[in-house]
Amino acid sequence: MKKYTGYLIDLDGTIYQGNNKVDGAKEFIERLKIHNIDYLFLTNNSTKTAPMVAEFLTQVHGIPTLPNQVYTSAMATADYLINTLKLTKGSRVYVIGEIGLKSALSNAGFQLTAKEPEVVIVGLDTQVNYQMFEDATLAIRRGAKYIATNLDTNIPNERGLIPGAGALNALIITATNVQPIEIGKPSSQIIELAMQRLVSSFEQTLIVGDNYATDILAGINAHVDTLLTYTGISTKSQVAKQTKKPTYEVDSLNDWYI
Amino acid sequence: MKKYTGYLIDLDGTIYQGNNKVDGAKEFIERLKIHNIDYLFLTNNSTKTAPMVAEFLTQVHGIPTLPNQVYTSAMATADYLINTLKLTKGSRVYVIGEIGLKSALSNAGFQLTAKEPEVVIVGLDTQVNYQMFEDATLAIRRGAKYIATNLDTNIPNERGLIPGAGALNALIITATNVQPIEIGKPSSQIIELAMQRLVSSFEQTLIVGDNYATDILAGINAHVDTLLTYTGISTKSQVAKQTKKPTYEVDSLNDWYI
Repeated sequence: MKKYTGYLIDLDGTIYQGNNKVDGAKEFIERLKIHNIDYLFLTNNSTKTAPMVAEFLTQVHGIPTLPNQVYTSAMATADYLINTLKLTKGSRVYVIGEIGLKSALSNAGFQLTAKEPEVVIVGLDTQVNYQMFEDATLAIRRGAKYIATNLDTNIPNERGLIPGAGALNALIITATNVQPIEIGKPSSQIIELAMQRLVSSFEQTLIVGDNYATDILAGINAHVDTLLTYTGISTKSQVAKQTKKPTYEVDSLNDWYI
Repeated sequence: MKKYTGYLIDLDGTIYQGNNKVDGAKEFIERLKIHNIDYLFLTNNSTKTAPMVAEFLTQVHGIPTLPNQVYTSAMATADYLINTLKLTKGSRVYVIGEIGLKSALSNAGFQLTAKEPEVVIVGLDTQVNYQMFEDATLAIRRGAKYIATNLDTNIPNERGLIPGAGALNALIITATNVQPIEIGKPSSQIIELAMQRLVSSFEQTLIVGDNYATDILAGINAHVDTLLTYTGISTKSQVAKQTKKPTYEVDSLNDWYI
């Protein structure tokens, strides 16, 4: 087996299940640390800031984590605006999203406003209302660029599967007839941007996740090797039907030797 | 030309353009009255009650109209619940929608509640928020039937084309992976339900509208003849590309002889 010098690791379903532990996850991270291997937690969740995610990993799951070991679709969106769209500080952007997304964009120097934005960014926002959808729709119809942090259709909460960023974006796609630039997994954008924060090369990096449709496809799209762990969303029978397989598959991260 | 004994007539783009007049519309209605021909105004707009629409036609556009001459997708939804779904009075329904939809359903005797509804109904609601989308999504995922008043992607307001009922429904379709039962045009449902309020037969009824994608397709789907008036959304070049044509086409209702 190839030796990997960098890991991009999904969180929910891979390292934890909400407040519950995932078997072998903590030990897996400890082995990476012992072997001095570079890693980054990579999540489509744009609602929390990196310090919030690091604190949650450290305090709730006993996995000591620094904010710079976390990379969210919100941070990737800010990096995309700077690196790819070449947006300058002070540029006007309209955001539907929570604290994670809003702080990533304002920390990057953008001006968050509904008035004549150059770019509209839509992530999960459980406080969204019609007025916000109207503002986003009109701005995109007037020619603003349109970015989705991610297109996950649902997220789990204690009541069940509730609408995710992909559902909110479906409303705006329908009202504008414009397809957004997608940043989060399965898009390769978030992988390419995350790689700028790892010392490892694409060839020697491994993406680890529980979700074929996001984690594994992101790796396939970005030409990075993948490890699917059957501790979350995807099942073996689902993955067996796919023509493009993960590079590796394990029942839990206990079965992964570094 | 066939003589029609009943007319189903669209409103916005056909009889008025918001607060503006449409050439020939008032005179067309006057001719119907003189010839004692049965007609019903038929609109996908579920936000207003029939008395509100009748008052608007009478006061703003000088077209004297009674509430029983107006049939909205909201009223058709209530009729569909009773006639087709056989829902009994007191049945629990969850509604995303405005006064037109809510009053049609509560007048029909249904209990409007987010708690364990049998049916979820989604129409345009400019006060919609995430919590409402969450409640609708969870109820449909638990097995509630799912109905859309209509799937118009946009409606015009003074700022531009803002999200319509079709956009709100796109969010819920994405979050539930369930397709709704569509009541409004181009569905034949609203036509079949409206026909129960006309004395005219299907063969001797004419649907009049400005929108090929809703008015004309509804007629084609319900096997009712159609008249397209080029005073609103559809253009001649768009309609020329369609294989299924309207029965008749006119530049304005001035050109239509009863």
